[in-house]
Amino acid sequence: MKKIFEIKDKTLIYDVLDKAEYGTLALCVDNVPYSVPINFVRIEDDIFFHGALSNRKMKMLAQNPKVSFSVVENYALIDSDFSTTEGLACPATQFFKSVSIDGAAVIEESREVKEKVFESLMHKFQPKGGYKPFSDSAYDQALKATAVVKIEIEKCTCKFKFGQHLSDDRFKMIVSALLARGTQIDRETVTLMKEQRGENNGI
Amino acid sequence: MKKIFEIKDKTLIYDVLDKAEYGTLALCVDNVPYSVPINFVRIEDDIFFHGALSNRKMKMLAQNPKVSFSVVENYALIDSDFSTTEGLACPATQFFKSVSIDGAAVIEESREVKEKVFESLMHKFQPKGGYKPFSDSAYDQALKATAVVKIEIEKCTCKFKFGQHLSDDRFKMIVSALLARGTQIDRETVTLMKEQRGENNGI
Repeated sequence: MKKIFEIKDKTLIYDVLDKAEYGTLALCVDNVPYSVPINFVRIEDDIFFHGALSNRKMKMLAQNPKVSFSVVENYALIDSDFSTTEGLACPATQFFKSVSIDGAAVIEESREVKEKVFESLMHKFQPKGGYKPFSDSAYDQALKATAVVKIEIEKCTCKFKFGQHLSDDRFKMIVSALLARGTQIDRETVTLMKEQRGENNGI
Repeated sequence: MKKIFEIKDKTLIYDVLDKAEYGTLALCVDNVPYSVPINFVRIEDDIFFHGALSNRKMKMLAQNPKVSFSVVENYALIDSDFSTTEGLACPATQFFKSVSIDGAAVIEESREVKEKVFESLMHKFQPKGGYKPFSDSAYDQALKATAVVKIEIEKCTCKFKFGQHLSDDRFKMIVSALLARGTQIDRETVTLMKEQRGENNGI
């Protein structure tokens, strides 16, 4: 990754992880990879997800705990003619935020940790509340039947691609074209382009 | 996967792949997995993507061509209290469409195939046109420097999860709650719930 795209600010990385409805987990056994989308929650510097004990991913993790996990927050498609008048297709791209994690999966067995993870998952996906706390004995069976997995992060890289590498002229052309097209995602993209330009320009 | 969630209709599977801005590719070398989001295009029954020859994924594919590829189209979050009056969190879920592909990557070397793939990528992401055809010699250098990869599909499974497995009572409760919340994605989810209920009910 070009240095200018790299994000080191934890607040920005957390924000991508906390807004994402899902990420994609990659596993492998016997050098055969498997990708599977999962709902997840970040707690401090760890990622947690859950699943039935009989799931393919749980069986694979028992054989090889190494995982890769990626999350994307997509922004505007940048048409090729937004930044060139030469009629070439090559500048066509998409702006985005992404987080890529390498780590190892750890099965969490303790009731206490499981409760904390489920409370956090519910807080993320159903912030209005409206359910009994997980300490309630009504959850005993469900908690036993469900695996909770922590991804211990070994490496986390975050990329924001918002035209930081472009010349001033091409950058301005893209801003104008996005504002002219003017969808909500176009306008949000322009805000992020300007933020990233301000923060990273000249580095 | 429960049979009731499985989609076999190619038209429906193509629709998920053709609408998706990205999918996530999983690779592995020496039993270390790597997940990476990619823009892609489907042509007939194959998936194609491109990248710089020097990319980590291209280097990994040279060592192990086996890949897994997944695409998600997310729909409404289903709050736990949409389908239970007992105050349990367990029914909380999300409805979605997903496609999961196992296959092998093949590097495409021919100019003819590369041109076809780039035309298709541009047609998907920039349908308005506005660029020279890839047969133009202006693209000679760019086409040489860029790898085009085909995923030869060995297995493709598609899952639509829209409450097909629920009792009539819980299904109706969810429909009512989604219509009451009433966002655009909630309304689209209800349409798909009813479609899937109609098609798969009783199977």
